[in-house]
Amino acid sequence: MIFRQLFDADSSTYTYLVADPVTREALLIDAVREQVDRDLKLIEELGLRLVYVLDTHVHADHVTGAGELRERTQAKTVVGGAAAPCADLHVQHDDEIRLGSLVVRVLATPGHTDESVSYLVGDRVFTGDAMLVRGNGRTDFQNGDAGALYDSITRVLFALPDETLVYPAHDYKGHGMTTIGEERRFNPRLAGKSRAEFIRTMQALKVPAPRRIQEAVPANQACGEPRNTQRSLAPVQGVSS
Amino acid sequence: MIFRQLFDADSSTYTYLVADPVTREALLIDAVREQVDRDLKLIEELGLRLVYVLDTHVHADHVTGAGELRERTQAKTVVGGAAAPCADLHVQHDDEIRLGSLVVRVLATPGHTDESVSYLVGDRVFTGDAMLVRGNGRTDFQNGDAGALYDSITRVLFALPDETLVYPAHDYKGHGMTTIGEERRFNPRLAGKSRAEFIRTMQALKVPAPRRIQEAVPANQACGEPRNTQRSLAPVQGVSS
Repeated sequence: MIFRQLFDADSSTYTYLVADPVTREALLIDAVREQVDRDLKLIEELGLRLVYVLDTHVHADHVTGAGELRERTQAKTVVGGAAAPCADLHVQHDDEIRLGSLVVRVLATPGHTDESVSYLVGDRVFTGDAMLVRGNGRTDFQNGDAGALYDSITRVLFALPDETLVYPAHDYKGHGMTTIGEERRFNPRLAGKSRAEFIRTMQALKVPAPRRIQEAVPANQACGEPRNTQRSLAPVQGVSS
Repeated sequence: MIFRQLFDADSSTYTYLVADPVTREALLIDAVREQVDRDLKLIEELGLRLVYVLDTHVHADHVTGAGELRERTQAKTVVGGAAAPCADLHVQHDDEIRLGSLVVRVLATPGHTDESVSYLVGDRVFTGDAMLVRGNGRTDFQNGDAGALYDSITRVLFALPDETLVYPAHDYKGHGMTTIGEERRFNPRLAGKSRAEFIRTMQALKVPAPRRIQEAVPANQACGEPRNTQRSLAPVQGVSS
């Protein structure tokens, strides 16, 4: 399997490139619109063909590259649930996407947003904002739900083998990745913490709204295609930015 | 093999953790002093024992964590050549360092600085500033030599198999890593370029001095131990900062 972890410094977002080394079919997970040229250049240099662009959720901190990538390559865009009607594929828990000899299994991991999914490819899981390195995504907008996130992490992600490599959508301390076993033992919000304790911790958080949320959420509901963005949309629920 | 790519956002430096999964012996390559606490915490959480701290060269953009790590763990510090007399081991081309069942082979790759080395572990090579993703380190101070760097890359690094994974000390566009084959074909300064062209390109570069060079070089010549730093040292040759 060809694998790359790419980084957008402006939004601290990781984008992942996964490809079958024989068929040369490729997918991107959580592409960033400002990095589309970089990503397409790399895909071309590696002799790959982009087939899918997956988002783990409707992001609030950057605009997805999915729409522009679809326009420029005919790749299909993939999201969980129904949050971005513009996507080509709306996937559910346990759905599988085939990419050459690789299988991407969809894991529903709601809680950061209600349509968040993780993608499992072999021994790697791409968790979006559901689980981060020694942390987890916030739960205070876009139908976030701390109890649902606790269940997603402890029942779905922690059910994976300890050796599973975890690749999140963000990381702010330079770790870049982690494993299921590490997070089970060392995630300060989860290790040894009850569901009620986790909910209390999340409810007590006072985190400023993402800088670009009022632009990013409507743009991402339209797959990142700015010309489709309804700028008259009501402000994102529960957020003053 | 246990492997982690860690990142220091302030200096855009990658630090690498390599460990034998059976003996739990570990080494760090190009540790950053400000990240020593993070790195030691991760090493402890992973159940590892730090045995070596390797630098690829005397860095000009950050202070190495080698000295502090040695004090706190009894790890041995390793550098190429004689540039940092404080180090425990001064390695030469083709030297080998054993870490459990892993072998680290030293490749002399001068040119960015005259004592720069790369470290080869299995199918991964850690190139420091000798070769970057679609680029290479500057050659305008610390006895840098563009002709020597061209020879290091084309004769030593490009002699490795195309599939070899390349992990540099820095990356500024979010690629994070590359392969020997990609750089042979797509590195804009090297692919299809003669030695004379490369030297002309490097001589024509006008890059500002690293922000922390006057602090970093003397500190790193003293293995990053500030109390050993001779603050009366002459300014770094050829650099006005």
